[in-house]
Amino acid sequence: MSSITIKDIAKICDVGVTTVSRAINNHPDINAETKQKIMDVIKEYNYVPNNSARNLKRTDTKTIAILVKAVDNPFFSKMIRVFEKNIHGRGYNFFLQHVDEQQDEISVALQLEKEKKLKGIVFLGGRFLNNEEKLKMLSVPYVLSTVGGIKIPDGSVGTCISVDDRKESEKIVDYLCELGHKDIAFLAAMADDEAVGKLRVQGYCDSLEKHGLTFDKDMVFYMDEKFEPYSMKTGYEMAKQLMGSGKKFTAIVCVSDMVAIGASKALFERGKKIPQDCSVAGFDGMSQSYYYEPSITTIKQPLDEMAEASVEAIFTMMETNKSIDSMLFKGELLKRKSTDRI
Amino acid sequence: MSSITIKDIAKICDVGVTTVSRAINNHPDINAETKQKIMDVIKEYNYVPNNSARNLKRTDTKTIAILVKAVDNPFFSKMIRVFEKNIHGRGYNFFLQHVDEQQDEISVALQLEKEKKLKGIVFLGGRFLNNEEKLKMLSVPYVLSTVGGIKIPDGSVGTCISVDDRKESEKIVDYLCELGHKDIAFLAAMADDEAVGKLRVQGYCDSLEKHGLTFDKDMVFYMDEKFEPYSMKTGYEMAKQLMGSGKKFTAIVCVSDMVAIGASKALFERGKKIPQDCSVAGFDGMSQSYYYEPSITTIKQPLDEMAEASVEAIFTMMETNKSIDSMLFKGELLKRKSTDRI
Repeated sequence: MSSITIKDIAKICDVGVTTVSRAINNHPDINAETKQKIMDVIKEYNYVPNNSARNLKRTDTKTIAILVKAVDNPFFSKMIRVFEKNIHGRGYNFFLQHVDEQQDEISVALQLEKEKKLKGIVFLGGRFLNNEEKLKMLSVPYVLSTVGGIKIPDGSVGTCISVDDRKESEKIVDYLCELGHKDIAFLAAMADDEAVGKLRVQGYCDSLEKHGLTFDKDMVFYMDEKFEPYSMKTGYEMAKQLMGSGKKFTAIVCVSDMVAIGASKALFERGKKIPQDCSVAGFDGMSQSYYYEPSITTIKQPLDEMAEASVEAIFTMMETNKSIDSMLFKGELLKRKSTDRI
Repeated sequence: MSSITIKDIAKICDVGVTTVSRAINNHPDINAETKQKIMDVIKEYNYVPNNSARNLKRTDTKTIAILVKAVDNPFFSKMIRVFEKNIHGRGYNFFLQHVDEQQDEISVALQLEKEKKLKGIVFLGGRFLNNEEKLKMLSVPYVLSTVGGIKIPDGSVGTCISVDDRKESEKIVDYLCELGHKDIAFLAAMADDEAVGKLRVQGYCDSLEKHGLTFDKDMVFYMDEKFEPYSMKTGYEMAKQLMGSGKKFTAIVCVSDMVAIGASKALFERGKKIPQDCSVAGFDGMSQSYYYEPSITTIKQPLDEMAEASVEAIFTMMETNKSIDSMLFKGELLKRKSTDRI
């Protein structure tokens, strides 16, 4: 492949190489008209400053896509910042793409792979329905970040990075059991969530069983597609459903802090006091849970560490083209005012 | 410039063009080994599917940068989603870059212009210190989004899109005055903020004057660089400063909803009731302000509309290369439980 050089541009424009360089670099000491002329020629000949065409392409293809589900969850905003810093820091671009609730994240990724020249994909959240067949079709390495419980199929290169959602969920329900609660409702993710959603319900069941309590499927409420998942709104609606169900409950464990805040609003509206009339627990450890009144008992996820590990993992896999073992991070139970002895 | 075609790739791989196309498009009906071979050749020859090299380059330079200040403000997360949708929808990439509080956003933009081939820049938030000289140096069109009160200097192509921060700030202070408050503290942005921060303090002064109240500079508290600006933490710290000052106050107006939530925590910690002991008002109209207990009186900014208008504006200016007039959007006063008659 031949390619045009800065000397060619200078020749065509009948100016010196320095002048072309000034035009390219927005140097102030250049006549506006001359600059325009040079830029026009550069455009016409498709000249790429400082790079051969081949290099340009190489540079421009250094893109990692980040697919974010459940965007309004401030949880992800914080992680995106870490991704940005670490990916830009390595000289790569990142392409941020939000995935709507109705969209399947892996299908979106497959489409993106076609359109963009991606080097890697990070999924932030997601439900991963029937994931096995589809994950296999991804041709670049991927990380399921904050997503546990998914088997990386052979023939694809990927990993999962998350807390042990089942264990952590068990831990917070244990805490409520130790406070004497026996009627504990669970506000869960979507019913068909095969990743985090399923694991946290399992952890809830594990804890009930350990404490000799009977699992009642009618004490578990799932998010409705109608509402933004993991939002305050969906928590508010689930808590209203719970109260409307006639079920007796003295504590509510929520799948996220934002859901817990929404649920609390529904309780307050009915004149209930937290924790006197009902204990409320969240999950994630967002600062919102600390600043809320009363401050909310939660499991703190090590967001920064998980985001950093996700970036490490994607670059490692881009180099080796081999899957790496899933990583589980430790959460921390933060005992706060929203939960109390019954 | 010569460039390799799909036919060349087919020939080199000794397969049909259809097979190459299947490999590229991740079609399921293709032997994995054949696919790998084709993809290797494509990589080796640097073949660009469906595009001549010329087209590729044109596509790859279609990037708009979004520079976001004060990231953890959920206010911006919502807008970023609209930007993403509208910019991707027009076939452009967007390059998201967070700007740290210590960084000057215009300097960051000037640096990015050099490194990336940007077509336009959107600033989301920012303080814009000594902006005139620096804005002039930007060589692509820009939008100051949610940033009012900045004059677009001649010689650059830009616009401001925001609510009328001065008027809206006046409106919410008016409401507190009408409720009978005379000792109204203001939790403001950084002291040197030349954009939104300054305008909202001016609106506060305008309202006090209109109601015959004396402006007391010691009733205005500014964010400290130490804390994430517009965060709950900074609101919490400013409210503690206010309470420590010995100043009498019956209402607090805050520069954002998150600041109001943080300030509320400081009040609750001192055993104060909202609104019985102190009224609290925010700004922005985030859903957090609705779900908080008590729900917080605020000014709702039309975020989606402003984000859409910002995208419209940047594309218009990229086409015409001419500045367009600043646009002011209307906010809405939401009267809620956190404020009451004195």
